[in-house]
Amino acid sequence: MMQARGRLIGLGVGPGDPELITVKALRLLRESPVVAYFVAKGKKGNAFGIIEAHLQDVQTLMPLVYPVTTEALPATLSYEKLISDFYDESSRHIAAHLDAGRDVAVICEGDPFFYGSYMYLHDRLAEHYDAEVIPGVCSMLGGASVLGAPLVYRNQSLSVLSGVLSHDDLKRKLADADAAVIMKLGRNFHKVREVLTELGMAGRALYVERATMSNQKIVPLDQVDPMSSPYFSLIIVPGDRWQG
Amino acid sequence: MMQARGRLIGLGVGPGDPELITVKALRLLRESPVVAYFVAKGKKGNAFGIIEAHLQDVQTLMPLVYPVTTEALPATLSYEKLISDFYDESSRHIAAHLDAGRDVAVICEGDPFFYGSYMYLHDRLAEHYDAEVIPGVCSMLGGASVLGAPLVYRNQSLSVLSGVLSHDDLKRKLADADAAVIMKLGRNFHKVREVLTELGMAGRALYVERATMSNQKIVPLDQVDPMSSPYFSLIIVPGDRWQG
Repeated sequence: MMQARGRLIGLGVGPGDPELITVKALRLLRESPVVAYFVAKGKKGNAFGIIEAHLQDVQTLMPLVYPVTTEALPATLSYEKLISDFYDESSRHIAAHLDAGRDVAVICEGDPFFYGSYMYLHDRLAEHYDAEVIPGVCSMLGGASVLGAPLVYRNQSLSVLSGVLSHDDLKRKLADADAAVIMKLGRNFHKVREVLTELGMAGRALYVERATMSNQKIVPLDQVDPMSSPYFSLIIVPGDRWQG
Repeated sequence: MMQARGRLIGLGVGPGDPELITVKALRLLRESPVVAYFVAKGKKGNAFGIIEAHLQDVQTLMPLVYPVTTEALPATLSYEKLISDFYDESSRHIAAHLDAGRDVAVICEGDPFFYGSYMYLHDRLAEHYDAEVIPGVCSMLGGASVLGAPLVYRNQSLSVLSGVLSHDDLKRKLADADAAVIMKLGRNFHKVREVLTELGMAGRALYVERATMSNQKIVPLDQVDPMSSPYFSLIIVPGDRWQG
């Protein structure tokens, strides 16, 4: 008799506050014999920290350690090649468990399909194995909640942008947005604040670092030190209030 | 001694599957003496249906019944005036409980700050009372999960648009989007599909009704009957796969 194959589960664990995990994610986390998570070398990992308290001794942990954490590499190394090989290799390790009939939950900070590394595993494995994705509270909604900022009203449009975009691209896209969220700040912070100032939007913009995490920090936009803005920070430009 | 005032809680309960509520929202729901929810006349309400099983007899229920459910009204009635008066009155009812020292949880389908009616209560009350918002899994992420569609990769931009926008506005905004979600379809479905077809994006677009609810329906875009598309449907145009 053929061994039934395991199931791949992309498990959103929410933006940081461990209580912001869904009941469904928590149940599937507890039921999964193998728990995989992305992590930088030498770090514990944000997603792992969120669910650590729920793990049991019988579960197999599978850290997936990024080979690099920056795209700025010596000319002899290709970021795209390194990271693509890493996702290939991670997928093979996960597939071995699935082939042996074991479910593998890949825990993801925020939501698995909203800028999550899980997507690269999903794209490699979901055609060959059963895959289920458990959506999670994403970082921008965690951010809006702690900033007390209603994000987008009625028929307004919301633009979610990466701080990596060029000055001109950011400016064009922001000029056409009713409400906006700018993710992936870090070293892009200075450029982003400049664009918002040029557009006259800086006064409406709100800034938060590590929203809903225990070390969350809310700072007025004009007081942020561009050199210390972490990657897990974001800017929200809420939509204009609708006086309905 | 002054009576301590109650706290206003905007409580995201997720996109429809009752298990997609967060642990935090569930805890606060159970702790709240008053539970308010928006509902159309004669209906039970989606948000209420999601949390109904968790309610206890001692909790006071406060349905907030919309005076209208369409913006198309006789010329003698102003939608904006009717709905604004309704939010004013709802806020007064809630304030009476808060003044009496009772916390009021306003349950919200999806996320409270992502196109939620709660925002209009928040704008009226949060300056006068303590208010806390518990973010939830929003409908677009519920939709992406059941469609198995990674939404937005790496440095791509995501545009969240209302189907109510004009043909030209939709076309301009979609043409500049790497990935898009179009909400509030209903009677706007035909126009939206036309725009996607004109832009050559229809082949990438995915459609789902009532994502994660028990009566969820996934239909190929070209087979959707424009006359029967409900308000709680959405279209997702996922970002191009990044071959990382």
